[in-house]
Amino acid sequence: MKRLLVIGIGAGNPDYITLQAVKALNRVDVFFLMDKGQSKDKLIDLRREICARHITERAYRFVAADSPERERGDVAYSASVEALNRAKQQTFERLINEELADDQCGGFLVWGDPALYDSTVRILQAILAAGRCAFEFEVIPGITSVQALAAQHKVPLNTIGQAIEITTGRRLAAGLVSDSDSLVVMLDAEDAYQQVADRDTEIYWGAYLGTPDEILISGRLKDVADDIQRVRKAARQAHGWIMDTYLLRKP
Amino acid sequence: MKRLLVIGIGAGNPDYITLQAVKALNRVDVFFLMDKGQSKDKLIDLRREICARHITERAYRFVAADSPERERGDVAYSASVEALNRAKQQTFERLINEELADDQCGGFLVWGDPALYDSTVRILQAILAAGRCAFEFEVIPGITSVQALAAQHKVPLNTIGQAIEITTGRRLAAGLVSDSDSLVVMLDAEDAYQQVADRDTEIYWGAYLGTPDEILISGRLKDVADDIQRVRKAARQAHGWIMDTYLLRKP
Repeated sequence: MKRLLVIGIGAGNPDYITLQAVKALNRVDVFFLMDKGQSKDKLIDLRREICARHITERAYRFVAADSPERERGDVAYSASVEALNRAKQQTFERLINEELADDQCGGFLVWGDPALYDSTVRILQAILAAGRCAFEFEVIPGITSVQALAAQHKVPLNTIGQAIEITTGRRLAAGLVSDSDSLVVMLDAEDAYQQVADRDTEIYWGAYLGTPDEILISGRLKDVADDIQRVRKAARQAHGWIMDTYLLRKP
Repeated sequence: MKRLLVIGIGAGNPDYITLQAVKALNRVDVFFLMDKGQSKDKLIDLRREICARHITERAYRFVAADSPERERGDVAYSASVEALNRAKQQTFERLINEELADDQCGGFLVWGDPALYDSTVRILQAILAAGRCAFEFEVIPGITSVQALAAQHKVPLNTIGQAIEITTGRRLAAGLVSDSDSLVVMLDAEDAYQQVADRDTEIYWGAYLGTPDEILISGRLKDVADDIQRVRKAARQAHGWIMDTYLLRKP
């Protein structure tokens, strides 16, 4: 039986990797590299470095696949994501069928944790459900950028006994958020924090978390939101890409 | 300057520990053990095992403190937690003042991640704000039981582009939840999943996650909720304590 490992490698700091992930890396024959976009080369280099650092006395190889890109523009978001996932599913099926022998182990290295805003697990479950490809798979959790954010700001994600909502910049911009006093926002390409009505809300913002390029800004929105927008724009220009996340806490 | 490290050691599986946490363990002179309740001995043993396994060529010692317990019964929840945190703050201040020399490093080993439903970071910030004790501190994130749950069930926490709410059994039982299609429930002592109206909701439940005693049950509430309640009660009796969490996903 073919075996696949979906390995969370943590977000940013190479030391975020767990001992479980290190052991998993050492079981993999073929690593599938599926990155895309402006951060592609950087992220692929980081994965190669992680393998070189942690894999001892074992031969492994990389197979890079052109990762399908989501259609942008005049198309509904969830429809475009579903179309993207179908395209990714075909790519994954091809990789598993053509690049992996029957007794081999394939690995996907996922930034952060495979359970949070990553499609790998969903796609593998869809392939198994479709029955066109047979394999077993395991999931190895990893430290997310949300956890890195909280650790670096030294702040809990929740207030006492209260809930936390983890959501997207898209949903915040559309006003589709709950009344939770702690809101974590990921995948925000639009500076959606500028649309929060109560400017006494505290924001804990971080970019390139855990890396040498890390930037942290915190304070009340009325005091720091414009700074964040300016710093964020400049950093994105300097690096060619940005990964950032933030916690909003109601006053 | 005294230094404190709040180290997330992951939930359940000893291999959930990160390389960052291993490095942090090796900087600590004094570990403060603050567990309480029925799981106390078990959790303290696990911490001693983690230190014995990962700390090399360095002397360290443990200081166990009687951890204050929350007052139960006829008292508001958040008031009782605040009183508990004040009592814990006094205990922490005493430990830092009396058990740590000026150039030494103290460590708190936190189950899961210090950012999620743990009071250590909040208490240290309160002590610093009160100005009665001087130290620097760092936070090291760890794999939470929520991440272990998703990994072991091989399920993403979110659906495509949607939000996740992480909340407590207490809030679910009181109906204080958002309309998010993905709800993660922690600290549920009351089988609150039995009160969810839509019995077609899927539940992914796990206890003692990542340990040899792990139990996983998933399915629609109408099919598995009674099983979970029965298994949960029996496991709690057999072990003397239970740690469980679950994901609810709307149909």
